[in-house]
Amino acid sequence: MLTVNFDNLFKVYNQDPKHGVSTPELENYKTQFDNYKDKILSRKQGFLDLGEQNIQHILDYAASIKNKYTDIVILGIGGSMLGPVTILDTLKKQETPKVHCLDNIDPDLITKITDTISLQTTLFLVQTKSGGTPETLAQYFYFRDILQTANLEIANHFVFITDPEKGYLRKIANQQNIPSFEIPDNVGGRFSVLTPVGLLISALVGLDIQKLLNGAKDTKTRFFDETNFEAYYLAVSQFLLSQKGKNINVFMPYSSRLKTLANWYTQLLSESVGKKLDLNGNQVFAGITPLPALGATDQHSQLQLFSEGPHDKLTLFLEVEKFENQVKIPTLWQNDDNLGYLENKTFNQLLAAELAGTKASLTENNRPNITLKIDKINEHSLGELFMFLEISVAFLGELLNINTFDQPGVERSKVLAKEILIKFSS
Amino acid sequence: MLTVNFDNLFKVYNQDPKHGVSTPELENYKTQFDNYKDKILSRKQGFLDLGEQNIQHILDYAASIKNKYTDIVILGIGGSMLGPVTILDTLKKQETPKVHCLDNIDPDLITKITDTISLQTTLFLVQTKSGGTPETLAQYFYFRDILQTANLEIANHFVFITDPEKGYLRKIANQQNIPSFEIPDNVGGRFSVLTPVGLLISALVGLDIQKLLNGAKDTKTRFFDETNFEAYYLAVSQFLLSQKGKNINVFMPYSSRLKTLANWYTQLLSESVGKKLDLNGNQVFAGITPLPALGATDQHSQLQLFSEGPHDKLTLFLEVEKFENQVKIPTLWQNDDNLGYLENKTFNQLLAAELAGTKASLTENNRPNITLKIDKINEHSLGELFMFLEISVAFLGELLNINTFDQPGVERSKVLAKEILIKFSS
Repeated sequence: MLTVNFDNLFKVYNQDPKHGVSTPELENYKTQFDNYKDKILSRKQGFLDLGEQNIQHILDYAASIKNKYTDIVILGIGGSMLGPVTILDTLKKQETPKVHCLDNIDPDLITKITDTISLQTTLFLVQTKSGGTPETLAQYFYFRDILQTANLEIANHFVFITDPEKGYLRKIANQQNIPSFEIPDNVGGRFSVLTPVGLLISALVGLDIQKLLNGAKDTKTRFFDETNFEAYYLAVSQFLLSQKGKNINVFMPYSSRLKTLANWYTQLLSESVGKKLDLNGNQVFAGITPLPALGATDQHSQLQLFSEGPHDKLTLFLEVEKFENQVKIPTLWQNDDNLGYLENKTFNQLLAAELAGTKASLTENNRPNITLKIDKINEHSLGELFMFLEISVAFLGELLNINTFDQPGVERSKVLAKEILIKFSS
Repeated sequence: MLTVNFDNLFKVYNQDPKHGVSTPELENYKTQFDNYKDKILSRKQGFLDLGEQNIQHILDYAASIKNKYTDIVILGIGGSMLGPVTILDTLKKQETPKVHCLDNIDPDLITKITDTISLQTTLFLVQTKSGGTPETLAQYFYFRDILQTANLEIANHFVFITDPEKGYLRKIANQQNIPSFEIPDNVGGRFSVLTPVGLLISALVGLDIQKLLNGAKDTKTRFFDETNFEAYYLAVSQFLLSQKGKNINVFMPYSSRLKTLANWYTQLLSESVGKKLDLNGNQVFAGITPLPALGATDQHSQLQLFSEGPHDKLTLFLEVEKFENQVKIPTLWQNDDNLGYLENKTFNQLLAAELAGTKASLTENNRPNITLKIDKINEHSLGELFMFLEISVAFLGELLNINTFDQPGVERSKVLAKEILIKFSS
């Protein structure tokens, strides 16, 4: 079960109050837990309930097309892609079907994926909440054209995952009997990983999606319904340390499989709390900048900055208790080689020691850090992580008094891009 | 040829001086160019000269083992891995040999790569500047043990890339006649991409490494020997804007192939300028935090924060003038679908319009940004980018009056990790 350790915030506080958080500072917020919870509930967002949804229709569909496709291409961007990619990178083990994630409109990337797949046995998942995302629609038109040119049946090669009622894709799905799944109206893109956006592809590659949901449900019970404060305290720590000038949050899993979760969290935190206006309409330019990192790898890239650079960071470590494999480091050196510290050790122990050493050295240097820990990597624990981080971001938005669930700041660039595109000669 | 555009710094300055840079602010530094250049030269670092090295021995070795291996595994971490991975992600086209980059000590990752390769036809490149990096040595012992168990000839399956004189690997190479290449003593890990660290694997996958070097050499001539100030002005802009509270530098290529370059730059900037002490021994906690992003993808992830969040960022866009492929967006919608803006357009144009829209909207919002532009992606332009960014970071270090070329802040975590590891029971 997911646990969270705040001890190094307190240690840093005891060394230098301006760089850490004290136990009283954190616990003073306890009385506000119910208040912030009520505020979150008043936003009427659906993500909290996704652990309890019925997924039979997804399982049925996945069973009905089992072994039919060698390749699956996901067309999507932002929240419609980061969730699926995170699940696949963390959990996918089956070799087939191969999954290609087309997360950009880069013409070289599109060409490369087109050259890789065998069209006749490829299924395209078109994922967009609004049903009108230009990047995703352009990708859809591109592959639809190729399928039509090859005289292949459109409804056999596309699945749409989009709004239940609105948007271009929904209209086409209804008109042309294209299989489709619904993203609930009250679930935003960056909170949609546990809707068909993430669940359908997971079912198609043989993952146990009920366990993903169980993890999410258990976490919602523990950290939102009951009075376990850790998800809330994570938000309070981010909030308090932001006020103390630590406005960058490093997210650093010590597991290559969980690397992509840092990118998923980057969107979740960036879009949710990066806001010009607060809920009273005041200009606040709120926001905390998430910075993805990977342990132990980025000890050799970013740790120098984290240890010695400006005091502007809080680091969130993500620790895995038990890996699937236990791998020995063979003792192949001579006695005089100063490598004795590796003797009879495993890679598991080396990785654990490096994480412990990094935590300790950051703490010594007055660099606040929090550790999230899971037992092992599987569907349940990944579901836990998704829901835990979503809940904590929702609390953070309330603490900052901003609208966690909109993204008004990207509209202007879209308008300008359309104006510019229209002016390009064909 | 690489060009740099600073106009949006000036536009932002004219809207609000505290968020931009003025032409006089930049040009005031012109008189200091030679002074900072001399300081860089006085550090006696070898990276500036790598464009002019003789690479015949690398070409000869690559020719001698052509088609001998189906798989190449790179063992390395930090600078010994980020350079090679960037080159491969950006330029590799050949299907074979397959390259596996083992950049972590995660036991599940090690097991996965072990299960993927066919040992008899696999070559292992062991890359560590010091020859003593624990992560890389542990990986080396692991695969050496497997090769020995399979009765395979060690010298046929390993190549060492390490210091010319010092360290464990150099000793073993000499004792056991293992093929090896040298990383010059005066080239640090994060500046080593154009040594055998990046060049050997490039040659082995069929890239034209002379063109990589030519790009680097031309760039050194243009932006360091001659009086083109753009690499220097990039550093001056970073320095001035850091003083105006923009202490996060977003690095955002609009090309999926160049995505990894952002990770390479992350190490370069993090380790080079994240320093507790200045050159006079004063505690300064210097540093700018690099933040990797990818266009257009991350417009749907981070742009909300960049547009509306705190005024703490400078964005470095990287634009590609011409992609290898020109890909049309087919017009498959009805007239009434409000998709007319996509009519008769290409993905190339859509991507270019999105970049232009993002630049314009950030500028409107007083968010300073600089655009680096290359003609197209190839060996020459990637060589240009490496050298340009290295030169500009060297200037930035001098402006900050810190030691650009050391990394004292990671030592403590290494010491602690060893102490902890020794205490673990075997």
